[in-house]
Amino acid sequence: MKHTIFKGAAIAVATVGMLSFSDVHAQKVPTPPKMVPEMTEFWEPEPRVVTPGTNITAPPSDAIVLFDGKNLSEWKAKSGGTEATWPVKNGEFTVGKGDISTKREFGDFQLHIEWSAPDKVEGQGQGRGNSGIFLQDRYEVQVLDSYNNRTYSNGQAASVYKQHRPLVNAMRKPTEWNVYDVIYTAPRFKEDGSVFTPARVTVLHNGVLVQNNVEVKGPTEYIGLPAYKAHGKAPITLQDHGNPVAFRNIWIREL
Amino acid sequence: MKHTIFKGAAIAVATVGMLSFSDVHAQKVPTPPKMVPEMTEFWEPEPRVVTPGTNITAPPSDAIVLFDGKNLSEWKAKSGGTEATWPVKNGEFTVGKGDISTKREFGDFQLHIEWSAPDKVEGQGQGRGNSGIFLQDRYEVQVLDSYNNRTYSNGQAASVYKQHRPLVNAMRKPTEWNVYDVIYTAPRFKEDGSVFTPARVTVLHNGVLVQNNVEVKGPTEYIGLPAYKAHGKAPITLQDHGNPVAFRNIWIREL
Amino acid sequence: MKHTIFKGAAIAVATVGMLSFSDVHAQKVPTPPKMVPEMTEFWEPEPRVVTPGTNITAPPSDAIVLFDGKNLSEWKAKSGGTEATWPVKNGEFTVGKGDISTKREFGDFQLHIEWSAPDKVEGQGQGRGNSGIFLQDRYEVQVLDSYNNRTYSNGQAASVYKQHRPLVNAMRKPTEWNVYDVIYTAPRFKEDGSVFTPARVTVLHNGVLVQNNVEVKGPTEYIGLPAYKAHGKAPITLQDHGNPVAFRNIWIREL
Amino acid sequence: MKHTIFKGAAIAVATVGMLSFSDVHAQKVPTPPKMVPEMTEFWEPEPRVVTPGTNITAPPSDAIVLFDGKNLSEWKAKSGGTEATWPVKNGEFTVGKGDISTKREFGDFQLHIEWSAPDKVEGQGQGRGNSGIFLQDRYEVQVLDSYNNRTYSNGQAASVYKQHRPLVNAMRKPTEWNVYDVIYTAPRFKEDGSVFTPARVTVLHNGVLVQNNVEVKGPTEYIGLPAYKAHGKAPITLQDHGNPVAFRNIWIREL
Repeated sequence: MKHTIFKGAAIAVATVGMLSFSDVHAQKVPTPPKMVPEMTEFWEPEPRVVTPGTNITAPPSDAIVLFDGKNLSEWKAKSGGTEATWPVKNGEFTVGKGDISTKREFGDFQLHIEWSAPDKVEGQGQGRGNSGIFLQDRYEVQVLDSYNNRTYSNGQAASVYKQHRPLVNAMRKPTEWNVYDVIYTAPRFKEDGSVFTPARVTVLHNGVLVQNNVEVKGPTEYIGLPAYKAHGKAPITLQDHGNPVAFRNIWIREL
Repeated sequence: MKHTIFKGAAIAVATVGMLSFSDVHAQKVPTPPKMVPEMTEFWEPEPRVVTPGTNITAPPSDAIVLFDGKNLSEWKAKSGGTEATWPVKNGEFTVGKGDISTKREFGDFQLHIEWSAPDKVEGQGQGRGNSGIFLQDRYEVQVLDSYNNRTYSNGQAASVYKQHRPLVNAMRKPTEWNVYDVIYTAPRFKEDGSVFTPARVTVLHNGVLVQNNVEVKGPTEYIGLPAYKAHGKAPITLQDHGNPVAFRNIWIREL
Repeated sequence: MKHTIFKGAAIAVATVGMLSFSDVHAQKVPTPPKMVPEMTEFWEPEPRVVTPGTNITAPPSDAIVLFDGKNLSEWKAKSGGTEATWPVKNGEFTVGKGDISTKREFGDFQLHIEWSAPDKVEGQGQGRGNSGIFLQDRYEVQVLDSYNNRTYSNGQAASVYKQHRPLVNAMRKPTEWNVYDVIYTAPRFKEDGSVFTPARVTVLHNGVLVQNNVEVKGPTEYIGLPAYKAHGKAPITLQDHGNPVAFRNIWIREL
Repeated sequence: MKHTIFKGAAIAVATVGMLSFSDVHAQKVPTPPKMVPEMTEFWEPEPRVVTPGTNITAPPSDAIVLFDGKNLSEWKAKSGGTEATWPVKNGEFTVGKGDISTKREFGDFQLHIEWSAPDKVEGQGQGRGNSGIFLQDRYEVQVLDSYNNRTYSNGQAASVYKQHRPLVNAMRKPTEWNVYDVIYTAPRFKEDGSVFTPARVTVLHNGVLVQNNVEVKGPTEYIGLPAYKAHGKAPITLQDHGNPVAFRNIWIREL
């Protein structure tokens, strides 16, 4: 680095009563001069103000509300571009025919979503209360009734499906609502389409950490090994797996 | 890798009706044979069951409750090894004389802690409602009344003090309770004492993401630049900064 | 994930003589069926062929040669857009007036560069054989005669200047040539200009690892703390620090 | 953070002719006071001196020489604890019966190793000039005659076998020597045996970057998916795959 001669700087320091650097020339090791507190105090940029919700599950002021109990106006059928037709009732909606996706597309985000396994317990393993939340339409956080329902660990509720089992099983029983709080970092790709950084995801299940910034290996595959393909922003997709899983209180904050 | 001869493996594959590999010898590029779903289904280990609290702020079944509204039996004075004497009243406690630390020591953890700035608004900047939560007794998540109270960004509530400003200001007003949910990964050190991986921290402030797995630069310094020194497990410490900040509902899960 | 019913998949597996999954219904834990070797053998894409140089310091076939001993046609004055005028002689060039930059701009790359401190030893500390290699015109790998010449550790040869000292001092004496092999990953930025991933750099000094994928903290600053600003591809810049450091055999491979 | 009152610090700063902080009280945004260069100059610790080899392939002064052309005294049979019996001749050794391992065990390291595919070209694909270098006895950097010899990309020379194909194919022809320079970071494990950070590896093949700090997925598996098991320091192992691959000039530096 270009700089003024060393001696001059030492003099400037000395005048403020800090260490003299004159002994450098005798090959002694200088101690860096003491800083003042303000040197590590940065005022800009100022974080913008966000008004939190009335409780920590309610949408903060900068959230996009994806479902507030009334209608699916933020959603569409995943295929065909038609409106989402899953039934809405009593402030919640239930899985209907075909996957649905948000009309908006997202990159990095924080997502809050609540869901409930069917009240009537039917089937077992992957056949009980199965749905899924596909981040950027590709990377599935599993939805399943994992209350007293053993399946493969990397396919139970709150797994990154077939990639990462949850750290613990924090499932509530049917008739109760589960909460997922998801922090998602989208993958980045190089110009040649190869992956630069993989997607990462943190999940809290009912307030309990179950995925800690894990590395997503690629798009969710039911059969075989995942492999990334470059993409941009993409919707959140909810899966129709044939079970009447219910959802409510969904909001997202772009990061 | 040591392996059976290639041709034999190709035959084994062929017998199950998958791709023949005989064309390898003609320099064609084989497609990997199709897997079956069960090949990516891993049952062991089974995630242990954790019963979530009655709501997502209540301690789950595997949490160590550090304050449940009754007493400071999990805490001691930071210096001197004596009991913690901060006043407990109405299910909360208020900052008293001297920092206090947990009796237990922690490595990686998830921490839930609620706090409230003093009802009576006094002072400004760093002088208003100042306290702090020191992770492993060294790395401070700032506690400050940042409601309509400008200070340096990397010193406001939910900053990693003098290292990372919060992504947004999600502060509630005095008389209301704030919630921090903290995911903490302890630093790791090499045998020679140098840092192998720095500490990392994620913070949700009132349910809003404010620190996203940021890299802690070293122990919090009021003056000058941080520098790691090797250490093992260590307590959570709460700071006496002379302001009557209140705390309640504190629990921690070891990760 | 949508999938065929579980039982059907189990049958498919059974027919190839692998594990039966019928015992799942008795709550036993299945072991994933054995894969065949070809399932983890991926033929595409095929890595392109690069012909290495005649020795490991010579440019491989895909390198852009930035100096082959003849002229500075790949370089220009950093300021003013004029030709580079540093003197070329005997297959090497020596620092002249003003910094010089490559005409080309680079993102991620592997860089090979050889340099020699002035034969005549003059000055001390930062005043002896000082120059610098600025990756993307911003991030300096220090060039200095660090042979028996103590200075601050994070300012000696092969330091990331004022950010990371080298792991060891692998300096050759004046009259000898030093080799830097640099692996550089450019920083990535978010749409709002904030840093997504910082730059990273690995340096081998005379074949000895001195920087191991360290995180660059921001543009090199002689005074104060570094802070990133978003940028795209940028040249390699060599610094005129007033000392007649010599350079030769410079090549780069885009990654 | 505990600190002296703000006003006092502001005065100290003011006396040295820097910014006055008195305007803070008027809610103006202060600029941090200017630092002096010495504040970011750190003299300790001083990097120890390493004398590089006579060229960048020769062992530096702090390397452990694992083969200098004379004998296999640093090696043993991998199984059985007996001496390594691979034939040594003309300053090189050739693959013999059974894998061999270093007597020493290593954690993080830089490894230099040279090898040559058999002069007589026989077989094809994995059958031509196959051997392997197992880092920590588990993680294989592939050795194969990949000169005009197509195989699966993640199994050719310089692949992390069945995990990462090389970025490019920098293979020299038989009768010539190849050089691998390997930078290896060992995996770290949590107390419960799960992986904390996976192993990472950088490889230069004949001076060309082919693996750039890639994440090792687990121990090399010929069949199926890799899965980590906790371990400590471990030897370097060379594989007997039945082909007379030659090795020479092997040295390692512990990091």
